[in-house]
Amino acid sequence: MDYKSSGVDIAAGNDVVRQVRRLARSTFTRGVLSDIGSFGGLFRLGVRKYRDPVLVSSTDGLGTKLQVAFLAGEHHTVGVDLVNHCVNDILVQGAEPLFFLDYLATGRLEPDVTVAVMKGLVRACTENGCALLGGETAEMPGFYEDGQYDLAGFIVGVVERERLIVGDKIKSGDCLIGIPSSGLHTNGYSLARKIMFEKLKLQVDSSLVELNSSSVGDVLLRPHRSYLKIVSPIMMTGFVNGMAHITGGGLTENLPRILPKGTAAVIDRDSWNIPPIFTFLQDKGEVPIADMYRTFNMGIGFVIACADDVTALVIEQLNRVGEPSASVIGRVIKGERGVHYKG
Amino acid sequence: MDYKSSGVDIAAGNDVVRQVRRLARSTFTRGVLSDIGSFGGLFRLGVRKYRDPVLVSSTDGLGTKLQVAFLAGEHHTVGVDLVNHCVNDILVQGAEPLFFLDYLATGRLEPDVTVAVMKGLVRACTENGCALLGGETAEMPGFYEDGQYDLAGFIVGVVERERLIVGDKIKSGDCLIGIPSSGLHTNGYSLARKIMFEKLKLQVDSSLVELNSSSVGDVLLRPHRSYLKIVSPIMMTGFVNGMAHITGGGLTENLPRILPKGTAAVIDRDSWNIPPIFTFLQDKGEVPIADMYRTFNMGIGFVIACADDVTALVIEQLNRVGEPSASVIGRVIKGERGVHYKG
Repeated sequence: MDYKSSGVDIAAGNDVVRQVRRLARSTFTRGVLSDIGSFGGLFRLGVRKYRDPVLVSSTDGLGTKLQVAFLAGEHHTVGVDLVNHCVNDILVQGAEPLFFLDYLATGRLEPDVTVAVMKGLVRACTENGCALLGGETAEMPGFYEDGQYDLAGFIVGVVERERLIVGDKIKSGDCLIGIPSSGLHTNGYSLARKIMFEKLKLQVDSSLVELNSSSVGDVLLRPHRSYLKIVSPIMMTGFVNGMAHITGGGLTENLPRILPKGTAAVIDRDSWNIPPIFTFLQDKGEVPIADMYRTFNMGIGFVIACADDVTALVIEQLNRVGEPSASVIGRVIKGERGVHYKG
Repeated sequence: MDYKSSGVDIAAGNDVVRQVRRLARSTFTRGVLSDIGSFGGLFRLGVRKYRDPVLVSSTDGLGTKLQVAFLAGEHHTVGVDLVNHCVNDILVQGAEPLFFLDYLATGRLEPDVTVAVMKGLVRACTENGCALLGGETAEMPGFYEDGQYDLAGFIVGVVERERLIVGDKIKSGDCLIGIPSSGLHTNGYSLARKIMFEKLKLQVDSSLVELNSSSVGDVLLRPHRSYLKIVSPIMMTGFVNGMAHITGGGLTENLPRILPKGTAAVIDRDSWNIPPIFTFLQDKGEVPIADMYRTFNMGIGFVIACADDVTALVIEQLNRVGEPSASVIGRVIKGERGVHYKG
């Protein structure tokens, strides 16, 4: 009895590792000291660039969006989802990404799938100027079904302490600017899949004419958007009082995470166009509206809070860097921390 | 149809999150700025302490050691395994841990299990002076079987650049000092489980008199040891030319990771006592000896390479800080990068 017969093929694993290393190396930024083969990934902070650097880190998975990728046999977008999700999570505190690590666990390593996943990670890391510094590819026979895998990501970024954004500057009267999402991003997939595949009995390749989309898989796998490039120029202005990434829990649960005690948000649901995928899920799934707003992003992936008198400037700057559809979606008021909806 | 009926219970999740936060907060070291509720975890590097800090990071999972935990219904040690594994992985490059994040994915959140896992993480983070800065607990119904979960960890540490250990100082003639493992650590479990549960048809609570162990579960779940406390004092001496953490791939694959080109390791298999669990697995599983040494740690969890003339001093210091069984297990020779065994 040897290790290969127990289901783990170290040699095949090593071959994939070599390919993955080559891919990862293409993302290496100036700070990277190590090759991926080291026990730990090495990143030189370059301390003269900072007066009081704060490291900001986050970890995330993709939830059951992965199940849609399995059904569709599409593995090149999930890596993009994961990196962009993590980038946005630290962006809300003003941090720019330094490096990323991934954890990919599978039952039996399928080299093509692994490499496709890695290519997505590499593409998004490159786009976000973030080094893919390391990762773990774990073969766990009998744990994951054939063709299935789980994928988690870890990101570390940095922000000068005096530029840290924690929401404490938010006050009653501030405007809330919403920036569109590109779709469901990575949240609400257990419910969305239940509606699409169980209730409506659609297939992943069923066409969805009413959504102007080639297929269910197409609309559900649309990659999570990164807000780094359009938001980071605005952080330099000092106008940003707080930011929220609208992930699991929707606007309802994510806005309170940055609201100071004694403030609430009022969101005007008529102030932006809800993308058709959300109304489709709401109608076909007969989902109560309150559940929609605490499950899905409803078309708003990122929120910036700023003082009323700079709001037009902030929106203008967002327009200028390539975001045409940012708009005021609500306001901060005095009250018990929470979100109220009108419209 | 709402989110709870789709299998994800956000409210129950939030309750566990509150408990987890309380636990995590107990690990917070001086650098931690954020509460766990922030989008990202905040760690102030304290830049005046370093001239040229290098961040060292690593990610790992537990492989199918988790399956043994599921069988035994014991969830308080897996967190210890994970943290210690990660701590050792960055220790080999001279780094001390700063913070740790975990990714816990499960089918349906079982609060007791989640809290038990977290308690292990918290215990080991505290012991290693490492802040549990954040984490993700993902409920993925239909993805993980009931009672099953996967757990991945991510660590960031720091080392002064001039104290970085990458093995480039290792040269022919150096001694290799082996430090005992506490058991299988977290590697080789697919094979070990196959031998124990399939070939020998043992149960997780079967007693193993020949191993002096109360049960199979007991011997297989023994926690992965952290080498931080006994190894870090030695790093200050400047005597350490290189270090290796003996994980998946055993001595055979992990030693070459630090050997400079043109050097090989000769390991004398008679120079330490192989713990009975390894000979038990070898005999009962009829595992070829070469496979044993590239699958299991064989009783050596960590290796330090140092010049011949300081070896006695290093071993003496290891003894003094509480490690009685460190000993020379081999040497570095000229040759093609690899490991040769004698004995």
